Amino acid sequence: MKDKITIICPNERFAKAWTDSIRKQVPDFEVQLYPDDTNRNDVEFLMAFNPPQGVFSLYPNLKVVASMGAGVRTILTGTGLPENVIVTKIVQPMHQRDIADFVLALALGHMRRIPEFFHQQKEKIWRHHPFQRPQDTTAGIMGIGAIGKVIGELFLKNDFKVTGWSRTPKQIDNIRTFYGDDQKDAFLTTAQILVCILPLTDATEGILNKKTFNQLPKGAFLINVARGGHVVDKDLIDALDNGQLSGAALDVFREEPLPPEHPFWTNKKILISPHNAGNTHPDVAFRKVLQNYYAMKKGEPLVDVVDRKRGY
Amino acid sequence: MKDKITIICPNERFAKAWTDSIRKQVPDFEVQLYPDDTNRNDVEFLMAFNPPQGVFSLYPNLKVVASMGAGVRTILTGTGLPENVIVTKIVQPMHQRDIADFVLALALGHMRRIPEFFHQQKEKIWRHHPFQRPQDTTAGIMGIGAIGKVIGELFLKNDFKVTGWSRTPKQIDNIRTFYGDDQKDAFLTTAQILVCILPLTDATEGILNKKTFNQLPKGAFLINVARGGHVVDKDLIDALDNGQLSGAALDVFREEPLPPEHPFWTNKKILISPHNAGNTHPDVAFRKVLQNYYAMKKGEPLVDVVDRKRGY
Repeated sequence: MKDKITIICPNERFAKAWTDSIRKQVPDFEVQLYPDDTNRNDVEFLMAFNPPQGVFSLYPNLKVVASMGAGVRTILTGTGLPENVIVTKIVQPMHQRDIADFVLALALGHMRRIPEFFHQQKEKIWRHHPFQRPQDTTAGIMGIGAIGKVIGELFLKNDFKVTGWSRTPKQIDNIRTFYGDDQKDAFLTTAQILVCILPLTDATEGILNKKTFNQLPKGAFLINVARGGHVVDKDLIDALDNGQLSGAALDVFREEPLPPEHPFWTNKKILISPHNAGNTHPDVAFRKVLQNYYAMKKGEPLVDVVDRKRGY
Repeated sequence: MKDKITIICPNERFAKAWTDSIRKQVPDFEVQLYPDDTNRNDVEFLMAFNPPQGVFSLYPNLKVVASMGAGVRTILTGTGLPENVIVTKIVQPMHQRDIADFVLALALGHMRRIPEFFHQQKEKIWRHHPFQRPQDTTAGIMGIGAIGKVIGELFLKNDFKVTGWSRTPKQIDNIRTFYGDDQKDAFLTTAQILVCILPLTDATEGILNKKTFNQLPKGAFLINVARGGHVVDKDLIDALDNGQLSGAALDVFREEPLPPEHPFWTNKKILISPHNAGNTHPDVAFRKVLQNYYAMKKGEPLVDVVDRKRGY
């Protein structure tokens, strides 16, 4: 039987980038795109990004779903995914570093008051502002896993103090780490800049809420490059209004594109970017996906496998 | 005779910060502020920032002028400064690092398209943009002296390639350096991000002109944290209009505050900041000024002395 990969990805631009790249890399493979794919009974290996509800029940012989991104929440939830199917995610150093560069740009920009300068320029206002130095600033990485570690290390290189929080204990040079529910509040009190890069799971949904914001140092800055589902939108707006937070940079939203009527758009303390922190790069990322495809064929262990119980 | 320091600084806010700091540090000194100062015949040691034309001829026994900033152009030119007067400038590691952090924030922000995201947000536009990586980007430091070196080294730490240009040859680890008029064009062709931190002198006035912009790689980005006099304003606008430059971040201007009618304000490819890249910190900077004051009294050599012939 011919090697076959089926792709489920409602975002056309993203789907095209991947299919083009895959066809170039493995021209002898059959590459099909849902919903125009055929012979679903043959399908053992799917690639997916934001798959529609219940879609996996169309594939009775499915063995592996390879996520086309780092997050897998939309693959694990409501999709009819049988328990024995293996899910893998993208783990890619260039992608991690891209996110870290973006987060650093946002953090330094806020510390140096660049968003205010933008707003002032619109009004032709010439006004100095005091600024904050990396040496005097602690960046707290909420979700210090693979990507979080790269972010933390980039901040360290730039002379920030760095703390990190995760579900399980971690040891990273020069980063003060906290873990579990018991140490969450202690972590939050350190974070003058709070960077959320958590996986979205039942345990982390809505974690960026009023209670969390109130634990942060007064005037903290929030950077969310994880998922929109982490944020309780109303609580964020309140925390900005009452000055508990000095600003927020949001790259992800509960609904994307962010709907025009959403109050985030017009809030001067919020900087909106269109889910642009990091791109997975099909030309590089597909190499590991292909390696997993062959491993599946041979019955060997796969890499970058998601722990389905913990959800990431 | 009582120790005496006289300050000439038309910027009231800045003058107050310095006089407050000096009075706190040396309460037994007489500290006077021009034009309300008395007994000008007694004055040997002046501190100055943007002094008025001809002002130094009012002080017949002047020995030293200590600049309250890193730039000294406005002290050397048109002020009636006798040839034998020693001029010193501020050389301060924290000030240098502040400028470097700001330049990095501007560079990364531009590479990650943050200014476009600001403009998009105003219109509620959700649009992705490709971005540029430090590893693929060369930052060219125009004026790789004391401050330029700190900027270059911060860019290196963040995995940029770095080149530098100066009047005289320099050797700095991992930075490809060029010098003099002969190597200027070769330098400019490397600079995808051109950072101007030159001293303003007769030789550098108007150096950011059409000819210079045309030597840069197409789509280069300009950051000017030196002086407004380096820029030929009209040439910059043309280079942005015709796409030779992709953008410019300007912290300094020929006239400050930038006049409301100036076309820079409304140019969407220009980011304006109000001379905010670095502040000299009187509490720290005055220590060296005081050291120079005592050196003058004892007839000993001063530090951070300006070479009046080269102009910085």
